[in-house]
Parts: sequence; structure tokens; C-alpha cells
Amino acid sequence: MPRHMTARRETAALRAAQTNPQAMLDRYANVRDMSLELARPLSPEDCVVQSMTEASPTKWHLAHTTWFFETFILTGHADRYQPFHERYSFLFNSYYNQVGDRIARPTRAMMTRPTMTEVLDYREFVDGAMTHLLEHIDSNSFASIVPLLELGLQHEQQHQELLLTDVKHLLSLNPLQPAYLDNGDVEPAADVQVQWKSFEAGVYEVGYAAKDFCFDNELPQHRVFLEAFSIANRTVTNGEYITFINEKGYERPELWLDLGWSIVNEQQWAHPLYWRRESDGSWSEFTLRGRRPVDEKAPLTAISLFEADAYARWNGCRLPSEQEWEVAAADVEVEGNFSDTRQLHPVGCEMNEGLGDGLLQMFGNNWEWTGSQYRPYPGYDPPTGAIGEYNGKFMCNQFVLRGGSCATPASHIRRTYRNFFPPESRWQFAGVRLVKDY
Amino acid sequence: MPRHMTARRETAALRAAQTNPQAMLDRYANVRDMSLELARPLSPEDCVVQSMTEASPTKWHLAHTTWFFETFILTGHADRYQPFHERYSFLFNSYYNQVGDRIARPTRAMMTRPTMTEVLDYREFVDGAMTHLLEHIDSNSFASIVPLLELGLQHEQQHQELLLTDVKHLLSLNPLQPAYLDNGDVEPAADVQVQWKSFEAGVYEVGYAAKDFCFDNELPQHRVFLEAFSIANRTVTNGEYITFINEKGYERPELWLDLGWSIVNEQQWAHPLYWRRESDGSWSEFTLRGRRPVDEKAPLTAISLFEADAYARWNGCRLPSEQEWEVAAADVEVEGNFSDTRQLHPVGCEMNEGLGDGLLQMFGNNWEWTGSQYRPYPGYDPPTGAIGEYNGKFMCNQFVLRGGSCATPASHIRRTYRNFFPPESRWQFAGVRLVKDY
Amino acid sequence: MPRHMTARRETAALRAAQTNPQAMLDRYANVRDMSLELARPLSPEDCVVQSMTEASPTKWHLAHTTWFFETFILTGHADRYQPFHERYSFLFNSYYNQVGDRIARPTRAMMTRPTMTEVLDYREFVDGAMTHLLEHIDSNSFASIVPLLELGLQHEQQHQELLLTDVKHLLSLNPLQPAYLDNGDVEPAADVQVQWKSFEAGVYEVGYAAKDFCFDNELPQHRVFLEAFSIANRTVTNGEYITFINEKGYERPELWLDLGWSIVNEQQWAHPLYWRRESDGSWSEFTLRGRRPVDEKAPLTAISLFEADAYARWNGCRLPSEQEWEVAAADVEVEGNFSDTRQLHPVGCEMNEGLGDGLLQMFGNNWEWTGSQYRPYPGYDPPTGAIGEYNGKFMCNQFVLRGGSCATPASHIRRTYRNFFPPESRWQFAGVRLVKDY
Amino acid sequence: MPRHMTARRETAALRAAQTNPQAMLDRYANVRDMSLELARPLSPEDCVVQSMTEASPTKWHLAHTTWFFETFILTGHADRYQPFHERYSFLFNSYYNQVGDRIARPTRAMMTRPTMTEVLDYREFVDGAMTHLLEHIDSNSFASIVPLLELGLQHEQQHQELLLTDVKHLLSLNPLQPAYLDNGDVEPAADVQVQWKSFEAGVYEVGYAAKDFCFDNELPQHRVFLEAFSIANRTVTNGEYITFINEKGYERPELWLDLGWSIVNEQQWAHPLYWRRESDGSWSEFTLRGRRPVDEKAPLTAISLFEADAYARWNGCRLPSEQEWEVAAADVEVEGNFSDTRQLHPVGCEMNEGLGDGLLQMFGNNWEWTGSQYRPYPGYDPPTGAIGEYNGKFMCNQFVLRGGSCATPASHIRRTYRNFFPPESRWQFAGVRLVKDY
Repeated sequence: MPRHMTARRETAALRAAQTNPQAMLDRYANVRDMSLELARPLSPEDCVVQSMTEASPTKWHLAHTTWFFETFILTGHADRYQPFHERYSFLFNSYYNQVGDRIARPTRAMMTRPTMTEVLDYREFVDGAMTHLLEHIDSNSFASIVPLLELGLQHEQQHQELLLTDVKHLLSLNPLQPAYLDNGDVEPAADVQVQWKSFEAGVYEVGYAAKDFCFDNELPQHRVFLEAFSIANRTVTNGEYITFINEKGYERPELWLDLGWSIVNEQQWAHPLYWRRESDGSWSEFTLRGRRPVDEKAPLTAISLFEADAYARWNGCRLPSEQEWEVAAADVEVEGNFSDTRQLHPVGCEMNEGLGDGLLQMFGNNWEWTGSQYRPYPGYDPPTGAIGEYNGKFMCNQFVLRGGSCATPASHIRRTYRNFFPPESRWQFAGVRLVKDY
Repeated sequence: MPRHMTARRETAALRAAQTNPQAMLDRYANVRDMSLELARPLSPEDCVVQSMTEASPTKWHLAHTTWFFETFILTGHADRYQPFHERYSFLFNSYYNQVGDRIARPTRAMMTRPTMTEVLDYREFVDGAMTHLLEHIDSNSFASIVPLLELGLQHEQQHQELLLTDVKHLLSLNPLQPAYLDNGDVEPAADVQVQWKSFEAGVYEVGYAAKDFCFDNELPQHRVFLEAFSIANRTVTNGEYITFINEKGYERPELWLDLGWSIVNEQQWAHPLYWRRESDGSWSEFTLRGRRPVDEKAPLTAISLFEADAYARWNGCRLPSEQEWEVAAADVEVEGNFSDTRQLHPVGCEMNEGLGDGLLQMFGNNWEWTGSQYRPYPGYDPPTGAIGEYNGKFMCNQFVLRGGSCATPASHIRRTYRNFFPPESRWQFAGVRLVKDY
Repeated sequence: MPRHMTARRETAALRAAQTNPQAMLDRYANVRDMSLELARPLSPEDCVVQSMTEASPTKWHLAHTTWFFETFILTGHADRYQPFHERYSFLFNSYYNQVGDRIARPTRAMMTRPTMTEVLDYREFVDGAMTHLLEHIDSNSFASIVPLLELGLQHEQQHQELLLTDVKHLLSLNPLQPAYLDNGDVEPAADVQVQWKSFEAGVYEVGYAAKDFCFDNELPQHRVFLEAFSIANRTVTNGEYITFINEKGYERPELWLDLGWSIVNEQQWAHPLYWRRESDGSWSEFTLRGRRPVDEKAPLTAISLFEADAYARWNGCRLPSEQEWEVAAADVEVEGNFSDTRQLHPVGCEMNEGLGDGLLQMFGNNWEWTGSQYRPYPGYDPPTGAIGEYNGKFMCNQFVLRGGSCATPASHIRRTYRNFFPPESRWQFAGVRLVKDY
Repeated sequence: MPRHMTARRETAALRAAQTNPQAMLDRYANVRDMSLELARPLSPEDCVVQSMTEASPTKWHLAHTTWFFETFILTGHADRYQPFHERYSFLFNSYYNQVGDRIARPTRAMMTRPTMTEVLDYREFVDGAMTHLLEHIDSNSFASIVPLLELGLQHEQQHQELLLTDVKHLLSLNPLQPAYLDNGDVEPAADVQVQWKSFEAGVYEVGYAAKDFCFDNELPQHRVFLEAFSIANRTVTNGEYITFINEKGYERPELWLDLGWSIVNEQQWAHPLYWRRESDGSWSEFTLRGRRPVDEKAPLTAISLFEADAYARWNGCRLPSEQEWEVAAADVEVEGNFSDTRQLHPVGCEMNEGLGDGLLQMFGNNWEWTGSQYRPYPGYDPPTGAIGEYNGKFMCNQFVLRGGSCATPASHIRRTYRNFFPPESRWQFAGVRLVKDY
């Protein structure tokens, strides 16, 4: 991967921010600015429309992340703080039942007011108050708010990723097929053969163990027993998936989970969400840089768990469990094609990458579907209060994804990070890496 | 009604435009400008969101009415006219199956592009071409396009009304309850007692007979036999409807049509759509000028046919048939509170209005629900081609409304005008006038 | 039509029953026995299943009609009558809000108890009480209950027709395609050319005027003005409709009402409900006597208003209004292929039938869709109390059908009889007769 | 538990049937007769109605289990076997895509034919053919069909359980609240305090290891690491759950998984499915023996995973993982209140049961919800062909239940048995046993 396509998690900066208000303020400013930068290519119209129930408007992402700081930091920790607007708590609460009433999720789509301009004013107001707070805070108070502050920043980074995937979905529905960013040149991906890396059966430790930030769902570190397995050194390519399509993968029920097969038929799935077969028989793909021909050597992306699972079964393989994935990632550097590179689409391997015995593309590019449904670790102990609603209540009927994507900020990801989506979700940058039992 | 609350249909200007290209151009410019003026108080965000399937975004209204002129006039009649954008015909066709493919109606809500700015450019481009066409047209060609041109203007006026009612619906859903226009002073309505005007049984003529413009559904003029009836001199007031509510009108199945009773229960209707009971027990009402106290003497508005019908039954009366309404209106001046007054809400009677024996409020203020389902007149003969889809295909499971509303342009209405909506529609300015059989 | 295919309304017997308790008891017994006879070919399993929300199980028809006599006659008029079962009033009320609570309509499908055997016991019990009542009643009391008694019998006859059409629908869904009755020989229909019978413009009287029984919706008799029209002497045949199909009638939006066109596409209508194209390209049709080849000369049946209307438009004609139909029927004998013939399917014309200038098939065979939405006559005055719910509350978004069908008892029909169904209904014996404006 | 409330898995008989055709024939006859016995208290009407999509009619259970033997044993293994009816394969296939087309699941509800009598004939025909086959089979052939034969019997036993739970659901919807069996005397349950049994952290083996029959989803045996846990000696009682209700358990979102909270609100859950609050404030419960007062000391049953999980969280506990449950059950005798006892409802503990340190009620009474979503074991290898569809394709968005219930035949259950249902399912005999992390 060329340098410009790679970003790296910088742990030192993250650590500094935990103990130093000024470093935290820098980090706060960086993360907050990034949200604005992501919204810049969009018109006010683009920022208000909600393309499906699962997605949110850009304007809402920008306001909701601001509400998080207002609600959990400023109110209660900043002297005499007055909320920017008395109704915004009602408007921009997402799902925290314990914070009070909130508007129904589909109603987000109706909220043309506050306008984008007013939301930007809201952000400025809250950023001013946050800056004042951090510039005048004593160290005890700082220590007490660091966990929530860091959670607020991590939360905003999650919404940055969603902002991108939601905008992509919205624009894809437009018959004009508008691009979010100009379509730059894309280097063709190299042809890298799959190699398998094997792991022995045994007891391993999984879950977060360091002192920096993690989400509650990565805790506690605990032991698991894994039977032996082998994992592919790269994710599945578009070309490999085209073979699956050509060999009638979408028409063979025995390849699919039953729920997946129902959806394939009801919604007439016959290819990945953003793909289209052109009149010359070739495949094109909608991306944040507009519609482009599918590069057969590049990674397959934007598929559901059902498609990932059917492809693996067709191939005589299976998906990794999340524990297998985490164990396999133990020695892999946390670097890759994150949102920091501004590719905003998975990129293929480079020529020389396939030569070693390392695992490629484990971080960035694509979230990787695992075969694990999202459930609490043994001893899981969510915080009390509204923050306790962050993760735990979603641990049902979702599957875990690992490794971050081209829409994830580099400073947001960890080896132990557990992302999760329902198995029918197709609009995230999600791909598939194969595993075998031997 | 004070003068400033009244507008009058000016037939002379309409007639002049039918024969004189320059007069037509003036009329074209006036109508087209009005659409822009109506959009002016709105943010770009307000203009793109669709609040329900039955409504359309402002941006879409502005583009679709423009598409009408481009498709039915410029293409075919203007020399070497090139459409502004090759895809706009697909985007902005509403329901004309014979013009070609179009996007599904719910998808209108997804179209953040073209932006409002681009739509305004589109309007300017088409207006330029139309101006050029009308400034250079010979009289034969002019005569041949006048019917379509006038239809295009009448069509745009219909969308002006929908733009207002759709915006009202959208803003009403916003927890901030934003006003479209500033809330000016409103003069309280006078207390005018109902008087009944009687009509004899006999053969009457209904349908349009003059030479000016009318829609195909008002033709042909034909004879009907009406049994004797009496009609109220004014529409039902908010105060009268409050009595209906207080006497449990929404809880008594025997007052309702069966379909209406189902909706009352499923959607828990207990008052008109835009009403809210305040903490002090009083009623307020959302209007284009924001939320205001309900004026008990002012006309009830924004009710469904089901509510109009149940109220009439509760009162021992019934709704007029559309023929009865038209016969009753025969001698009434076509003037009233139209959109030209910028009230944009029904206004009550004035002190002196109830004294005579005339029918009040027949035009403007509120469309009036009739008890007639919308069906073709005997001998109805729609034009061939796409324009034939304008009216006829909707003649099923709708009810006719008569008289225009505070959102209807004065130059748009006629005594024979047949508006129509499904019986459950509640977001139009629609009220109820009672009729008795004796 | 051969004699055995014709039945005739016998007014004398109906009249006798109005004044003579013994004649009424005979009539009561005849009607009630007919219901049992209709159920005889069915298994208990056939009698309990509900094939769609609009249909009801046979067992429910048998119990509900019994409940009608128990509720409206025995309770209140029979000395010390004790209901057969305290819960049956709750179970077998259909839609009379004023009689008390009732089970939700879809729940009818769940009621495996009471069993068929218990329902037959219920019928016997009520019939015994009715017999006792009529055998001992004094003439004043008899006079006071005759209207309700006759209503109860007419009501039961309506359910006899629904029982047949509901059973047909249920059996048609079974992959085994079981026949309700054995498939007897069917005489091929003769080829009768359409002739048009003309009526002058003028004032006509419509609505019921005699002294015998009619439903409230046929009243009052009143005057209407009809413009001149011509009506076809027979209904449309299967062969004529095949031409419509072959000329892509189901694919041309301009032929359809907008709501109809939506359903055509959503439900993929491409032929009448009970038709199937066989592997040899021919059409077959599911009937109460099993699946049979479509007879091209026989009457088209089991179509929706939408299909009737599209066919008429394709043909340059239209549907009659219900007033036109009634005026045309004024001199036609009330006889035809009613349920009394046990054909239970429309039959074609006979060779000699087309020779005269009379209207054929006006009664029996098929209900004929009119272009009139079902609304009250001027001066309509439903009875007070629960019986007032019989007709009036359904006068919304339905279309009127006239003339009775092969599933209607001969003693049930009148020239003024107004049947009604929503325009998408397809499972009744409903056909189409064309009208022209000149 | 009194002896008559206990049944025991008799492994010896199961083993004998694997090697001896006559023993197998006895076992075959016993299992098949049991199905008929279960249907005996039902009317034909009860046997045909489907109360919800997830349930099936009794008639269908009886026919589908027969179809299994016809399709997988007789066709292919019995000389010149002719299927009883050419269409039954289409009618009675459940979900085996590889066996051919089948009717849509909701259509099962429409199949009034074949009647119950015909289905019983079908069973007799197939049983005759099976008897003939087993009486004349040579030992090699016998060995080759034993796995499928045993699978067919286990399959029929699964449907016996579903027959009971489906009938219970159907009858519960009937306003008459009919009992499946007479309401016998029920001994009140004893008050047994919860005791906790602890297990050490370590590597354990789970999955089936013996040579007798098991389903493919119980394989392969494999190692897991479990952190230390303690498990309750009995399941949660009705009285304990009443406290949860009284303390507003159904109104506190923080106790619920997010999907569960949505359902609680949409479907207005406020108590277990079959409970009803009587006018005196007490709780009653619908059972297969009719509606009965809730016994506070008896086991809570018929709850969803969501309710089980919310209750556990409210209690500061959690659900066991399926591995924890299996390890805890390792030394527990496989005996309890199975369907063989004909209680057909969970029974409480006896006075003397709580004294020891053993785990009570692990088998029978209630399936116990685990916190494990149903996924394949590492190395899972389903058979090829249609039989491979038995389990694997359902491994998505379901939760595992363990231990069997009062509707499970004793000879059907094993310690390693993995039952599974979606988390919202409420109509099975399913309860909850608590676990703590220390």
C-alpha cells in the first residue's frame, strides 16, 4: 500500500490527552474540526435528508455529537452553563432512555429546523464552552471528566464514520449519482494470492488490557479456548465474488442462512448493494467518488453478513469468530487505509505486499464480518446511568465486525474493538476474510 | 370581511391572456413569480424534505411545474429547444405514464440534488425560453399553444396551493413549531348565526359553459335533477366543533362512516389534525403563522371528509352534493379570502356580514367537502395523450371539494371547479357547510 | 337459457309471509334449511378456515345469521328466552357497534370452538324458539316483528351468497383444487352478438316504491335526470376479455384508474382472479365445480371494478351508472340463473336469446359493476339503533353492483337492489355490461 | 417431585433400536402412536387452523412427520414404493429447499384438504409400508437406514412438542378459553429457597460424545474455557416474577435489550403471554388444562428471552451461557416432568427437594433460555443434501435453550441437546435459571 494510503494509530497522542488538559483540548479541536471538514462537500439539502431508518442526516450527526458534550460534560461540570436551546436535548438525544424523552427516530428526517447554519452555531457555542472549561479546569476535576470526555470524542468519531456511510447511501439513491468527492485517479490493485496463516489450539486471552480508552464492551479481558484454525492473509476480492455471482451464488438456497435467503428473495438481491451491471455486461460500483468500474483485484466491500457467510460456505470455508480474529491480529501493526487517507474506499494490495507471511489489510479498508453474534463478555459490567446504554442493550441479533474501515479515523481503532451491525446491513464498508478449521 | 382579506377573480385579465401573447407573458410572469415568492420564507432544508407520501418537497413543486412547460410547450413548440438537463424529465415527472419513466413517488424525498439553487437556475432557464417563445410567436402558433399554456399556469397555481399546505404539514411536525410567516395580529371573528337558504326541486344545469379555461373534469355541462334542499349561509366554526368534541363525537361509532371509524381508532383521532389541547385545557392550532389559540368564532379547517360527515350527522344534517353546492353558488360573487390576501388561514365573518340573506364564505377560506365521490360527468371526454391523465384516472375513492381556500390564488377558482381528495385527507384547508333535506 | 337454468322471484310468497305467521314460518324454514344445504358438501375443516380478511368461515356465517334472530327477535320478543350460550353474542356479532363488544374480525379465523356440531345445535335451538314464537304469536305482535324477521331472512340470504363466494375463494387456494360440487356437464354458450338498447334523456324515478321488503339504502324513491344512453343487451364474454388481455390490456396504464394501476403492478394482476394459463396456452378457470376450461362465449366473471372499468375504456365505452341500470331494468322480468338453479356459475346465452330486442342476463348470473360509488339517496333516513348500521356506514369508497348473481337466491333480489363492494374486490360473481353515451 | 410427575430417558431402549429391526419397529410404533394420542382430544376444526405464522396446524404436524418417512426412507429404500398422493410432497414439505418446491408457510393455514380423516389414512398407509419394510429388511440395509430412521423419529418427537405448544396458543386465543385436557387437581408447589452451585474456571468439553443419536448441531465435541460461575439450583418462580412486575420491570428501559424494549412498547407487553389479571387483582394463566390461578411457588413459564434477560438483569444476575448450562448438567440425572407424565405444564418443587446441593428441574418442566445466540460449534460439518438443512441454516438471530420441557418426550432429550428460538418467542414452555459471575 502506498504511504499515502496508510494511516497509523498514534497511541502517544491519545495517552497525552488523558492527563494534560491542553493536549486534550488539541485533541478535542482536531476531532471536532474533522466533523466539519467531512460535511464541507455537502449542500444544506444533502445534510437534512435521511435515506433510511438506519441512517441519520448529516445535520443530525453534527448536532447529536454536540449534544453529547453538552449533556454529559457541560451540564454538571461547567459553571453556570446554560444549554444553547431548551429543546435541543429533546431533538438530539439518540437512544438514551435515561436522559429523558426524545423524538422518534423516523422523525429525525422531518427536522428541517434548526437549519444547518443554526447547527453550526450550536457547535461553535458548545466548543467555546468546552474550550473555556478545559482552559480553566483544575487537575482533579480534569481527571474526573476525562473518561466522559474521551468517550465523547470516540463517540464523535463513530458518527464521523456513519456520516460518511449515510451520505454514500443517500447519494447512491439519487438518479444523478452525484459524487461526494471528485473522482481522483485510482491505482489498480495488485493480484495477491491468498496464503493461510495457522494458529494452534489453546487458551488465549481476549479483551482490552491496557490503560488507555476502550469501550465497556471490550472488557473484561478473559480467557477463551480456541481450536486450531487457519486464516487468510487478505480479504476477498471483487473478482472472487464475481465468480460466486456467476456460479449462481444468489440462487442456491443451500449456501445461505435461512433469514438471508428470505431477504435475497424478498428484496431480490443479486449482487452487492452498490453494484450495477452496465449495458456492456461489466460491473460498476457507487462510491463516495461517484460511480466507477469494479476493480476485480480490489477488496469486495459493502456486503451483508449474509453475503459474507454464503460466500464463505460456497468456498468451503467459514467466517472467523471474533476471538480468532483478535488472536490473529495480536502481532499486526494497527495501520492501514483509514479515513485519514481520504481515499474513502477500500484499496487493493500492492505488488510487494503478498510476499511475506503477514496478515494484510487487518486494519482499515473494510470492517470484517465475524461469525460471532454480539454478546457480552463473561463478567461484562456496564457503567450505571445513561452511559450504560451505550453498548450493552444492543447485544442481541447483531454480528461483530473487526478492524475498522476506510471511513474509520486511525485514532479510533484498536485490536480489541468490537463493532456490530445486524446481519442484513449492507451500507457499511464491510468485507470478508476466510477461515478454515485446519 | 375587511377589504384586505378579500380577493376577487378578475376574469378580464384571464380572457385577455387567451388572445394576446404579451398579456399572456405578463400573466405567465405573474404566476411564475408567485411560486418564488411563496418559497422565499423557507430555508434550503425546508425545501427538500417530504413530510409524508401525499406531500411533496417545495423544491420538487418548483421543478415539476417548470418541467411541465418544458415538456408540453418548449419541447415541440420552441425552435431547437434543448432541455436544461437530460435527466430532469425523469426526476420531475409526477404521474404521467405516457411521458416515460419516472422516479417512484417516495423517492422524491431522497433527491437532495439538484439543489434549490440549481432548481432556481432551471426555472430561470425555462422562463427565458418561454419569454423568447412568446415574444416571437405568430398568432396561429400562439392560438395552438394557448390551451396547454393556460393549463400549465393553472397547474402551477395548483402546486402553489399544495406547496403551502405541504410546508404547513412539514413545519407542524417539528418540535420547534416554526412559523412560515410572522404571526401578525388577527382580528377576532364575529358571531354570525346560521341562516338557511332554500332551493326548490327541479332540473338544473351543472358544469362549465363559458369559453375561458376550465379543467376537463368540469365538462360537459349537463342537466341534473335535485330534490329540494336548504344550505347554511356559513361554514361550521371551531366553537361548534368543540361542542361536538365535548359531546364525545370522536367516541360514538354511530356517527361515523365505517372506514372513518377504523381510522379514528387506529390513529387515535380525537381532534382536528393541527389542534392541541394545552395544559390549561384550551385548544391551540398550528397555522402557517405558528401555533395560535383556536378562535371559536372562526371557521373550522383542516378536517377530513370523515370528520365533516360525522359532524353533519351529529347535527342532524348532511353534506351538500357537489351539484347542490354548484347550484347554490350560482349567484355568489367569486371573491373571498384567497392566497392573494396573504392571510393564509381562514378568517371569520365580519359583524355586518350575517345580516343579509346571501351565502357567506362560499369562495376562499376553506375548500368545502361535499358528499359526492369524484366521478366523471356523463359524456366526460378527456383529451388524448399524456394530458388526458390529468384528472380522469383519479376518479375513484375520492370526494369532491368546492370553492377554493385561503391557499388558492383568486385567478384559479371557478364556480364549477372540482377539487378532490381521499376522505381521510386532513392537511388541506378544508371545512364543512351543512345541508338539510327540507 | 334452458328452464333448469332459470329461477324467478315469486313475489306472492313473499307477500303472504308478511301477514301470515304460518306462511312466514314456512318461509323461515325454507331459508334456514337452504343455509344448511349449502354447507353440506363441506368438511368441518372447510367450515372453520378464513381465507382472507374480507371472507368469513362457513361456520361463522351459520352462527352469525342465527345470532341475528336471537339478538333482534328472540331477545325481547320471545317470553323468557335464554340465549343458547352467554358468550355467543360476543363471538358472532359482525359489525354492530351498538349491540356491544365483539371479537376483532381477523380473530374469526381462530375460532375453532364452538365446533361445527355445536353451531348446528345452536341453529336448532334458535329455530325451535323461533318456531314456538311464530306458532303462538298474536297478530299485533306479529305485525311488530315482521320487519325485523324479514330483515333477518334477507340477511341470511346475503350470507348464503357470501358463504358460496368465500368457500370458492378458500378452495381455490388449495393446491389440490378441490371442487365444492361435482363437475357436471356444461352446455357450451351460444355466440350472441351485442345489440344496443337506447334510452332517452329525461327525468326518471329510481328507488323502491312497492310495499314489500327492501333495504333502507333503496329509499326514498326520488327523481334523477339522465342524459341519453345506450346499453348492451348482454354482459362481456370471456372471449372478448381474452382479446383485451392479448392486446396488452393489463400493461397499458392509460386504460386504468390510478388506484387500479397501482394494484395491477403491486399484485401483478395479468388475468381474472380465478384464471390460470395452462401449459398449452389455453385458459382455465376455478369454479365451485372445480377447475374447468374457460368457455369463450360464456360471461366473464369474478373481476374487480378496476378490470371492468379498464375493459370498458379500452372498448370506447363506459360502465352504466346505477340509475341508468335501474331504468334499463324497469321492464325486464326478474328471472335468471340464481342460486336456486344450483349451477353456481354464470351460464352463457342460448341460441335463440339474442334475436329479440330485450336485455339479456340482467338478473342472475353476475352482479354487474356500475360506475356509481355507493352513496345515500337524497333523503336517506336509516333506522335508529343497531339496525341503522346495516347499510349507511359503508357508503364510502365502494361501488354499486346490480342484478344479483348465480349465488343469489331468487327471492332475495329486486330491480332496486343495491349491492356494493370496494373496487378491488375480485372474488364475487361480478361481471360487466357496457354503456355508450349516444 | 412425585413419581408420577417424573419421567426418565431410557437409553437402553434407544440403543437396542439402533441395531435390531424389531426393536426399532416397536420404537417406531410407540412414537407414531404418541402423535395420534396427542391429537385425540381435538376436534377436526382445532386441527386445521394456524394461529400464527410461527405455528402449524395439528393436521400439518401429523402429515409433515409422515412425509418425512415417505420422502427420506420409503422413497429409495422400500421396493416399488408408490407415494400415497402425488401432491403431498408439495403440501407437506416444511423447509427443505433441496427436496423441491413447497407451499408458502402462511398457506398451510388455508389447507382444509386433505381433511383430518385423509391425513390419518396417509399415516396408516405409510406406517404399513414402514412396518413391511422393517419386517423384511436385511441387516446391511437396516444399518444403512438407521440414522435416517432415528432422525425421522426424533423429528416426529420435536413436532409432538410443537403440536402441544401450537394447540395451546390456538386455544388461548379463543374467547371461550377451551381446555385441551380436563383440569385435574394440581398439588401446590413447595417453597424452595434458591441455592447457588459454583463451578471453577477451566477448560471443559462440550458437545455430544457418545455413540447414540444426536443432532448435527451438537457436534463436534470440543473444548471451551469457562470463567468461574455460580448457577441457581432451581428456575425462577411465578411469585418472583410478580415482584418484578410489581416493581415496574416492564416499564424500565434500562433493564431491557433494545429490541426487547421496542417489542414491549409496540405490543404493550406487561406480563407473560398467557397471564391475565383478574378483576380481583390476582393473576391467572392459560394452560393446556384451561385457565388457572397462577401458583406463586411454581415455575414461571412461556416467557421470551427478552423477559428472561430483563428479569435476570433486574436481579443483578445474568443468563447462563449454553456451555455453562451443559457443564452444570454433567452430573444431573436426565429425568423430570416430560410429556410422558401428561402434566403438560411445569410443576413446582417438592418439599424435600431443596435440601440437597443438587440442581433441580434441569430437565423437563421448562426449556431454559441461555444467553448464547445459536451458532455452529467449531468444526461443525452438516450432512450434505436436504438433511443438511435441518439445523445449520437457522443459526442466526436465535438463542439456545436447554433441558427439555413438560412437552418434550423423555426419550428425546440429552444433556447436549440445543433447542433454539428467536428471542421474542413466548409460546414455548420456556423459563429462566439465573447465573452469577462469582
